[in-house]
Amino acid sequence: MSSLRKISSKPDESPLDRLGTALAGDLEAVNRLILDKMQSEVPLIPKLAGYLIAAGGKRIRPLMTLASAGLFSYTGTRHHALASCVEFIHTATLLHDDVVDDSDQRRGRASANAVFGNEAAVLVGDFLFSRAFELMVADGSLDVLRILSKASATIAEGEVLQLSNNGNLDIRQEDYLRVITAKTAVLFAAACEVGGVVAGRPQDDCRALYDYGLNLGIAFQMADDVLDYSASEAKLGKSVGDDFREGKMTLPVVLALQNVSAEERVFWDRCFVGREQREGDLEQAQTILQKRGLHEEGLRLAHTYGGRARTALERISAPKTELWQMLDDLVGFAVERPY
Amino acid sequence: MSSLRKISSKPDESPLDRLGTALAGDLEAVNRLILDKMQSEVPLIPKLAGYLIAAGGKRIRPLMTLASAGLFSYTGTRHHALASCVEFIHTATLLHDDVVDDSDQRRGRASANAVFGNEAAVLVGDFLFSRAFELMVADGSLDVLRILSKASATIAEGEVLQLSNNGNLDIRQEDYLRVITAKTAVLFAAACEVGGVVAGRPQDDCRALYDYGLNLGIAFQMADDVLDYSASEAKLGKSVGDDFREGKMTLPVVLALQNVSAEERVFWDRCFVGREQREGDLEQAQTILQKRGLHEEGLRLAHTYGGRARTALERISAPKTELWQMLDDLVGFAVERPY
Repeated sequence: MSSLRKISSKPDESPLDRLGTALAGDLEAVNRLILDKMQSEVPLIPKLAGYLIAAGGKRIRPLMTLASAGLFSYTGTRHHALASCVEFIHTATLLHDDVVDDSDQRRGRASANAVFGNEAAVLVGDFLFSRAFELMVADGSLDVLRILSKASATIAEGEVLQLSNNGNLDIRQEDYLRVITAKTAVLFAAACEVGGVVAGRPQDDCRALYDYGLNLGIAFQMADDVLDYSASEAKLGKSVGDDFREGKMTLPVVLALQNVSAEERVFWDRCFVGREQREGDLEQAQTILQKRGLHEEGLRLAHTYGGRARTALERISAPKTELWQMLDDLVGFAVERPY
Repeated sequence: MSSLRKISSKPDESPLDRLGTALAGDLEAVNRLILDKMQSEVPLIPKLAGYLIAAGGKRIRPLMTLASAGLFSYTGTRHHALASCVEFIHTATLLHDDVVDDSDQRRGRASANAVFGNEAAVLVGDFLFSRAFELMVADGSLDVLRILSKASATIAEGEVLQLSNNGNLDIRQEDYLRVITAKTAVLFAAACEVGGVVAGRPQDDCRALYDYGLNLGIAFQMADDVLDYSASEAKLGKSVGDDFREGKMTLPVVLALQNVSAEERVFWDRCFVGREQREGDLEQAQTILQKRGLHEEGLRLAHTYGGRARTALERISAPKTELWQMLDDLVGFAVERPY
């Protein structure tokens, strides 16, 4: 654990950065595997996949798997392959998301579908998804396969549900919660759970890891949804207001629609149902949210789920190492990060 | 076998129809499973999936699994779930294909993406694909999982390769063969092989079933590609010339580009590279193919692969029952069908 101690002495690093540094060796193995397994004799596949995967991203999901196994001092290499699977599933989802949302930007640069076309993005997404399953099958654990195949089906259901909710001003907070649980939190949960499975932990620990991941994922997505209205573009590293422009019923809007005035409802109706957005509309939406204190309310909700993640982490029968502490710190970071 | 004998006495039925009638009980179980497993709490999923799956299709792939297990008098029910998996994988591929090709017709009626939107088609395709994996995992055989996850990754590779080949007039016959092997034949092969696996057959039989399915699939796709230029629309039940309009480098065009005259190459270049298609172009393409005898050459090639499928069928150590005979007849049908 000496390397962990050394690393945690840099106070300016975010908990996510510290996790990446603490698990640098494992993460490097995962990155090598990702690069290796996205290869194909069809050149467009590694070209497109590489464009997206090389663009970085924070590898938060694979880190969840690595850290969960690491909590129990797991010394094998199965978690490398499974962390790669999790990242492949996530990447496939991003590719299809961008096609569905007709996005031309991702993480501050042209999205893969904008560069390579929607057709290629759909098909390479399918490839990465299939490749993820091949990797899982090679691992050979039916428990892991059960966890990740169920997560995949739930993600797809969540994506369809989100699409169905678009333009529904009567959306309830629980509908929104169902969407983000399915499309985001379930993969965080599965990523953590498989870490426990490869470490050979009993069901109680695996369940606690699942609950930690699930609640962390919900908190993370809620904060993300608030940031899409409240962040500074420079810090976010991507454009603000994407959800607004795409007509997505995310947390700030869902909150705004509760106890909405008739006049304000006309505004949301025009922007989200009629999909007629004029210059200044995003700013007006931001003003409404700010005046009604809804950014804060959204973050308060995120904190609630963050608290549940921490409680779940306490239930895990692992020593409270620095790695454990980083997972605890990550909860605060998920909610309070400025980007 | 008495029901089989009675059925095969109807000479006007196609071998595929006869197979469906002979395995009617199993096919019904598969159809029930398909309906059951495409359910979801998200209403759009069964609505869209049902639109496509209820549209019918010939269920040729699930029939391959059922018949392959049936050759060895398999009496369990695992083949029902796996035949459903195979159909789900196929349906997911169709959904994504239609999005990629921007098709508005499938099997003579509006395609699912035309009715429900490309977004929903992409996401419901993802759901069906994930659900297929859940079904396989529930079956619990790592051998089956290995076969079908590899097939899925190969299909996706084939689709990307096909996309990459569009507008490439220097395409060779072997490039074309690679595409159809990956995107069509490999699923036929896997569908047959898993039938042998659930029946507990040794590797030789499973390999022979794989080879039968692979070569049948190649023959089937080659004939399909010829029919898209040569068939009568009424008999095909779908529009003729789709491949031409979508600029796909299918067998007739690949053959036409071999030993092509400079003048004719200008025509193919305009239609497939410049993608500038005028009225009468499809008819001109058909005339060229007919004059040069390329429909017949295409079908001759299909026959070659059909012959290999028959040879593989002979290798299988199963009694030559009427079911075996139907699989043999199916080869002729795949190549000679008028639709």
